[in-house]
Amino acid sequence: MDNFTHIAFSDFWDNLSEEDKDTFIKKTSDLHLKKGDFVRSEREKCQGLIFIKSGALRTYLLSEDGREVTLYRLHEGDVCILSASCILDTISFDVFIDAEEDTVVQLTDMSFYGELTENNIYVRCFGYRIATERFSDVMWAMQQMLFMRIDQRLAIYLWDESVRTGSLQIKATQEEVAIAIGSAREVVSRMLKMFSDEGIVRVFRGGIEIKDRAKLHSLTL
Amino acid sequence: MDNFTHIAFSDFWDNLSEEDKDTFIKKTSDLHLKKGDFVRSEREKCQGLIFIKSGALRTYLLSEDGREVTLYRLHEGDVCILSASCILDTISFDVFIDAEEDTVVQLTDMSFYGELTENNIYVRCFGYRIATERFSDVMWAMQQMLFMRIDQRLAIYLWDESVRTGSLQIKATQEEVAIAIGSAREVVSRMLKMFSDEGIVRVFRGGIEIKDRAKLHSLTL
Repeated sequence: MDNFTHIAFSDFWDNLSEEDKDTFIKKTSDLHLKKGDFVRSEREKCQGLIFIKSGALRTYLLSEDGREVTLYRLHEGDVCILSASCILDTISFDVFIDAEEDTVVQLTDMSFYGELTENNIYVRCFGYRIATERFSDVMWAMQQMLFMRIDQRLAIYLWDESVRTGSLQIKATQEEVAIAIGSAREVVSRMLKMFSDEGIVRVFRGGIEIKDRAKLHSLTL
Repeated sequence: MDNFTHIAFSDFWDNLSEEDKDTFIKKTSDLHLKKGDFVRSEREKCQGLIFIKSGALRTYLLSEDGREVTLYRLHEGDVCILSASCILDTISFDVFIDAEEDTVVQLTDMSFYGELTENNIYVRCFGYRIATERFSDVMWAMQQMLFMRIDQRLAIYLWDESVRTGSLQIKATQEEVAIAIGSAREVVSRMLKMFSDEGIVRVFRGGIEIKDRAKLHSLTL
């Protein structure tokens, strides 16, 4: 078992019996997801505990009329707990989770993880702790959606993506940007035109290039 | 210590030492809140663990321009964990909590609860479990705000309040209703006028009376 798995599961790993450690490793396997593949949907609600080895998962709400609202993203080294939400009795809502790019995850079998959760207080606590972390992520998204100006939301998105990828070029369509910040494509288009007029960004086919980092950063504050 | 406290804290009570049980009782005292009193605000962020004996607490977001968005309400028998959020390292957001009516709470001293959380896995797990329960409440509120029609939100609010209080008369100003459903007073006014024209409700000074339960219920679906 890789080292980073021990780190991700360090809340409970040392409190597993040797037998449980062996079974954990046996019941854990890699899953290769293509961009767009579902981890959690209306049909598939409880896959198991997921650790992300590479790529990115997006968790979002989907309305009856097809509107999407991004709650948070998870990247390499993160644990996805809502893919195992049926294990935690206090989680009573539905979300969608899909792969935002080609992604490799490590999946621990649901029924084994469920047994562990029931029988081992450290595993149980780990699950609730990760869920609480996601609670913070969702509150952040909610505050952004409810209270922030659209230009600020867009600026924060561009800034964060640039920092995350270590590049001034953000490869995302305007549709994708709109989904990410919980807005409409038309609104994002208009706002990017404005940013572009001000020399903050340059829009190219399939992405956005940051031209004035200082000015962009000032918009995020 | 009252019986209902044992039930509220049953996740960990039997896993406390006799000494910790004694100290828990010593470090817990009643607090009488007047309607509008803050449990959590920008100034007072971490009071301690709260158990509600009677009354109601409201948890909400407050924007810079003074807009409020209700996240959830807690009533008799509920535990308020965000009043002790500084104890849980994964909670990184700010909310406001105030007494929606005259309320009696049982407050367990923050630093004692913090020590317990650090040293006792059962207490720690309890805190995260309650937080995850609140996560579900917030997701429910978020889905309502994002996706539901305003008439449905209003109908659900009226229905829930009626069931909760066991009365057909809901004592709340239109301002209070608007805050509760995350809308504006003008919108609520307009919608109540429509409900009233349809014989679903009658608006009186300081409240709303439900006239047609079946019709109201059909709107909540």
